[in-house]
Amino acid sequence: MSNIRLTVTYDGTEYSGFQWQANAPTIQGKLEEALARIYGQPLRIAAAGRTDAGVHARGQVVNYQAPFPIPVERIPKAFNACLPRDIVVVAAEEVPPEFHARYSARGKKYSYTIDRAPFPQVLLRRYSYHVGEPLEIEAMAAAAALLQGKKDFAAFQARGSSAQNTVRHLFRVEVREYPREQLLRLFFHGDGFLYRMVRLMTGSLLRVGLGKLAPGDLAAALSGERPEAVGPTVPARGLCLEEVYY
Amino acid sequence: MSNIRLTVTYDGTEYSGFQWQANAPTIQGKLEEALARIYGQPLRIAAAGRTDAGVHARGQVVNYQAPFPIPVERIPKAFNACLPRDIVVVAAEEVPPEFHARYSARGKKYSYTIDRAPFPQVLLRRYSYHVGEPLEIEAMAAAAALLQGKKDFAAFQARGSSAQNTVRHLFRVEVREYPREQLLRLFFHGDGFLYRMVRLMTGSLLRVGLGKLAPGDLAAALSGERPEAVGPTVPARGLCLEEVYY
Repeated sequence: MSNIRLTVTYDGTEYSGFQWQANAPTIQGKLEEALARIYGQPLRIAAAGRTDAGVHARGQVVNYQAPFPIPVERIPKAFNACLPRDIVVVAAEEVPPEFHARYSARGKKYSYTIDRAPFPQVLLRRYSYHVGEPLEIEAMAAAAALLQGKKDFAAFQARGSSAQNTVRHLFRVEVREYPREQLLRLFFHGDGFLYRMVRLMTGSLLRVGLGKLAPGDLAAALSGERPEAVGPTVPARGLCLEEVYY
Repeated sequence: MSNIRLTVTYDGTEYSGFQWQANAPTIQGKLEEALARIYGQPLRIAAAGRTDAGVHARGQVVNYQAPFPIPVERIPKAFNACLPRDIVVVAAEEVPPEFHARYSARGKKYSYTIDRAPFPQVLLRRYSYHVGEPLEIEAMAAAAALLQGKKDFAAFQARGSSAQNTVRHLFRVEVREYPREQLLRLFFHGDGFLYRMVRLMTGSLLRVGLGKLAPGDLAAALSGERPEAVGPTVPARGLCLEEVYY
């Protein structure tokens, strides 16, 4: 048995999220179908993050126990020959037996893409959220800085979460402008994220950008004093799992 | 009656091209359905270019005769409320009665996007053509220069064309690298293009990049001496109508 780690990219638009479901297309389902075809037997994968329906990935990480060896340099092509075109394996390597895509992860980086053109940019619409009104970027950056650090993020968690411990370390929140592309991207680097935490934080940061909240309101939101300053949950299509740190 | 000019952007993936067809979704069909809803009567549009199935546009231009005035600043929103999300009107203006989107056009700019990452970049796959092998960019630029000028492009025309005059002025062909994005873009500026001319020229330029043709072969292709140096027709999804010049 060898432990194989894959880096997987996908366009989440057509999927009901990462995690396997009996009656809906999922990324895990497609990867496990490919695995079964490649190895001729049913196999399970473990994943770093179970992205929601419609969320994309440029750097999801999964691993599985291979029942027999295949040269790792051939593995991406073997998967891509079995996968639909909106899921692509971009790297494979053999890792030590104790490696687990989820439990070994030290952190993750997510991006959220906002289209700032006057009208939605049609070739970016599947991967961005359009906000046509002007945004105060400096206020957003100031608010983002207040979210950073090791804190209890219970306020920025959607109902339906089963997290027992809601303390997370948010290493950094970046607010980056791409003027030529008329895009704004928020990058969230952290040791872990609660259910819908990135989309709720982005919703609050956008309200700061629109002048509807002050940066300091996010500190009050975090402490639980201003629950109405949390969110809304922005659409899944702007969110992308960029990278997993080990 | 006022003559209204629109700038239209679209993701062509789901459409059987620009031009109206009875039993297939087309861009023209969707625009004329929106027009009928806005003005309460059937109206026809004229378009600068009839893009093929799967081809995109960031700057298609159309015009129509409005039976009654609507303030132009409200027209894009009126259209976008009636259009599917993959077609977006980004500008409207009133133009002189003699303006015709097709016959008044002095030129057009097309782009063709090539994804050069080792594996296809999944979030770009609808808008690019993946070429994983290394490309000799300088050879491609040298070949592109040979295509420029006022010439008979009959060799770079697909069967099924009805063009009587096959002389076109190709003002400029640019080969531009985007190393960070792992993309290569070809830009074609010309006074007009024959049927599939851009995709056939791109096919030949890619063969030059792959070392399968020498730049000079394209001059021989143009003169009709080397018909086997023409094409292949690259996939529609990499092609985008960027701009129309008036």
